[in-house]
Amino acid sequence: MNNSRRKFIAGSVALAAGSATAMASSTDIQKDKYPLVHHVFFWLKNPDSVKDRDRIIEGLKTLRKIEAIKELRIGVVASTEKRDVVDNSWGVSELMFFENLAGQASYQDHPIHQQFIKDCSALWDKVIVYDAIDV
Amino acid sequence: MNNSRRKFIAGSVALAAGSATAMASSTDIQKDKYPLVHHVFFWLKNPDSVKDRDRIIEGLKTLRKIEAIKELRIGVVASTEKRDVVDNSWGVSELMFFENLAGQASYQDHPIHQQFIKDCSALWDKVIVYDAIDV
Repeated sequence: MNNSRRKFIAGSVALAAGSATAMASSTDIQKDKYPLVHHVFFWLKNPDSVKDRDRIIEGLKTLRKIEAIKELRIGVVASTEKRDVVDNSWGVSELMFFENLAGQASYQDHPIHQQFIKDCSALWDKVIVYDAIDV
Repeated sequence: MNNSRRKFIAGSVALAAGSATAMASSTDIQKDKYPLVHHVFFWLKNPDSVKDRDRIIEGLKTLRKIEAIKELRIGVVASTEKRDVVDNSWGVSELMFFENLAGQASYQDHPIHQQFIKDCSALWDKVIVYDAIDV
């Protein structure tokens, strides 16, 4: 086996080992890499309109093309136990992760995001945004 | 190079390639596996007390031992742009992912969670919980 082959093997093994570790703790890596959490809740103008809800969901899906968004989850109210502290009055949620404040700012100004607001803002009545940074 | 070496290399490369793919789409894998999002915001009784805030943070860290929690992020208010829709009046947040409703329910009843509430609930004034399920 020549030297370059030997290095190639060593490199592959190291990559494999490194990747396996990364997979096992992928959530921790994401936590470190994408520590900025942006969670938005939308209250629909017509709370009973599945059509309006689905239009917002479709609009949110277009945001996936924005590179600064490192992960995007679109949600609806989960049927967990009803408790006083649980707010289940909203209609649609978006949960995003960013690398840093600059990434989040670039998302706010992104044409695809602006288009989403233009297309869908008439459908919602209220929006609450929570921006958290991992500690 | 003998056959076993050749197989070893091929295996390593395949593992490396497979892991790289898995890493690239790890967020999608998690989304499918852990679709239940539980986001809790705590408003402190003494909003300016870093000591109280840190006690809640330390309390939240103990929750990591609860198996049903597939990912846990503890956050504080991020210094994103102040906008009317952004609520930055809270003090500490916990963001958790669960496999399903049963996992979330088992977390609610878990002794470590109950101990956290016992130890820290005197420190907060208000709690809002959002439970979302991925669409």
